Amino acid sequence: MTEGAKQYEGRRIHPDRLRRFSVRVMERCDLSRSQAEETAEVLVAADAWGVFTHGTRQLVPLMNNVRQGAIDAKASPQVISAEGGCALVDGRNAMPMVSSRLAMRTAIGLAREAGAAYAGVRHSNHFGAAGYYAMMAAEAKMIGIAMSNVDVCMSVPGAAGPVIGTNPIAYAVPAGRENPVFLDIATSVVAVSKVFSAKASGQPIPPGWLVNEEGHSSTDPNDYPEHATILPMAGHKGYGIALLIEVLSGVLTGSSFLGGIKRWVDDDPLPADQGHAFLAIDIERLMPLASFTERMEAMVSEVRSARKAGASGRIFLPGEMEWDRRSEAYRNGLALPDFVIENLVRVARDTDSTGALDFAFDIRKPQ
Amino acid sequence: MTEGAKQYEGRRIHPDRLRRFSVRVMERCDLSRSQAEETAEVLVAADAWGVFTHGTRQLVPLMNNVRQGAIDAKASPQVISAEGGCALVDGRNAMPMVSSRLAMRTAIGLAREAGAAYAGVRHSNHFGAAGYYAMMAAEAKMIGIAMSNVDVCMSVPGAAGPVIGTNPIAYAVPAGRENPVFLDIATSVVAVSKVFSAKASGQPIPPGWLVNEEGHSSTDPNDYPEHATILPMAGHKGYGIALLIEVLSGVLTGSSFLGGIKRWVDDDPLPADQGHAFLAIDIERLMPLASFTERMEAMVSEVRSARKAGASGRIFLPGEMEWDRRSEAYRNGLALPDFVIENLVRVARDTDSTGALDFAFDIRKPQ
Repeated sequence: MTEGAKQYEGRRIHPDRLRRFSVRVMERCDLSRSQAEETAEVLVAADAWGVFTHGTRQLVPLMNNVRQGAIDAKASPQVISAEGGCALVDGRNAMPMVSSRLAMRTAIGLAREAGAAYAGVRHSNHFGAAGYYAMMAAEAKMIGIAMSNVDVCMSVPGAAGPVIGTNPIAYAVPAGRENPVFLDIATSVVAVSKVFSAKASGQPIPPGWLVNEEGHSSTDPNDYPEHATILPMAGHKGYGIALLIEVLSGVLTGSSFLGGIKRWVDDDPLPADQGHAFLAIDIERLMPLASFTERMEAMVSEVRSARKAGASGRIFLPGEMEWDRRSEAYRNGLALPDFVIENLVRVARDTDSTGALDFAFDIRKPQ
Repeated sequence: MTEGAKQYEGRRIHPDRLRRFSVRVMERCDLSRSQAEETAEVLVAADAWGVFTHGTRQLVPLMNNVRQGAIDAKASPQVISAEGGCALVDGRNAMPMVSSRLAMRTAIGLAREAGAAYAGVRHSNHFGAAGYYAMMAAEAKMIGIAMSNVDVCMSVPGAAGPVIGTNPIAYAVPAGRENPVFLDIATSVVAVSKVFSAKASGQPIPPGWLVNEEGHSSTDPNDYPEHATILPMAGHKGYGIALLIEVLSGVLTGSSFLGGIKRWVDDDPLPADQGHAFLAIDIERLMPLASFTERMEAMVSEVRSARKAGASGRIFLPGEMEWDRRSEAYRNGLALPDFVIENLVRVARDTDSTGALDFAFDIRKPQ
């Protein structure tokens, strides 16, 4: 850990404090209070679920995009069309979380009337955790699906280099007394962070994770990323699903797709021009909500009561680990991993917010 | 091969002849001409794509379901509601292909007005190849998605036995001068037929395909199906996707789900009570069709021109192999595998249609 980060080592931070800190940082980068709040909401939700790669550590690349003009801090997304069960939002290179929330809100509003709705977004950027937007629908008692294309970084069967992004997809389904059934995944075989972990610990990785420049499977994590590319989950199946996401998010929205998308994590980024897609289905159109949630509870209970792999085993429902982590975070504060703290320290320094970070970690009183 | 099947060995059969034979068989099992034609259409499409497990070989279990009353040959599915972007069809245990076609037609009709639509089906049976219904939307210049729950036969992470079905999902996207981009997959790690192939050839299977009763990975294909269960594609990711399909097809439609679904391949089957879900998105609501298909062509071309794994390699688009097989089938006739021929011989005998099968294989003139 760097000097600046050490003072926070082992300290927990409450999600609400982290949210307030994030808002301050973004306001100091010229975002409006309301855009900063919307964005912080999405980032802190990811941290609370334990999806730290997609949480507040993204303040660093996001604010870099703002400084470089790749994200326009002063722009607002615009609903171009919204009728029946179909909407299109122009992100206008505004904060991607703001555009995405607007699109999902629009989809929910349309689905309330039409029963089901699709909302696409064009001219956007990395929208963080897809699951956040799916959950907006679940909170509105709907089934929500969210997806996005991202910059090309994944190979496909038959190829020896990057072809498509690790396009994420998420869904959320209300389940009555149970937490919503919730999934948020990239379409790659594993998260790239697992390759870096193996590299750090000097372990080989299983075949099927990476393809090298000769088109062979590589088990050497050191090949990544210079000489090998991550593969899709489940081979041609994950490739096919990633391509559907590319179509619904990129091709259909009028945004960029595949190689047309710019890398948002570059030091000197151009507007990423990613696209997103959101779906909402209104449960009440099909059956009373109470009947549906009873059925969901029965489904959850049936999965849980299946024969376990180990004597003391547990079968997790999709999202169950995330909900466990979230309650822990709100009860006892978030235990952020080092790489997140390092990013927070960095963005605090860049925005004259170290005092605010101290306060967030409960080291000192507000100034 | 059995005696009755040997005479067809090595012979090809034109898809149109196979369709006519299938219609005759079903009419002799009391289906109306139009229901028989609709069903034959779906089955023969699967054979033409080379998806022989889901083609006309299913005439045997389908007609068995009809004979046992698990499928009601005289019933017609009913549209219960269809408004805005949302529809629900009661399959009333009628032929599942007829109910599914009706539901996708309804979704397409609604999407023409609303831009996007969901149609669910309840009280149905095994609907064959999901891809057929997705393609109905693509033919109507829409993006189509089709899915279904099926009887429990797949394990999930943490479990040591079956928990959920190998719930299939398919999609189809019009691509202008290119064939539609098309995917039709089960959410299991591999098709169960691959386990049987390994068993037949005495080969071990890779770890990660099967979990045994103790909850460990099994590489012995002989464990299947008595002592081991197939796993989802990509572990928790495939499990999560299978569960979303279960929700959209089963829970939301009012059909059975998980263990409530009956096995349609039993000798003495009860009504399966499967559910299906169909989505259609009207491209023209987002942009002119010509712009969309140009963009699809560009996407296809970009994927194809990526760096290949082998010097003489080829990167297939999803569906490209199926379209190649389909043109070959219509040009030179279908080369059916033995297990399909055996099934055709059996169903021909059961329905006094051996002469019709001879004619279909061009062995004799029509009677």
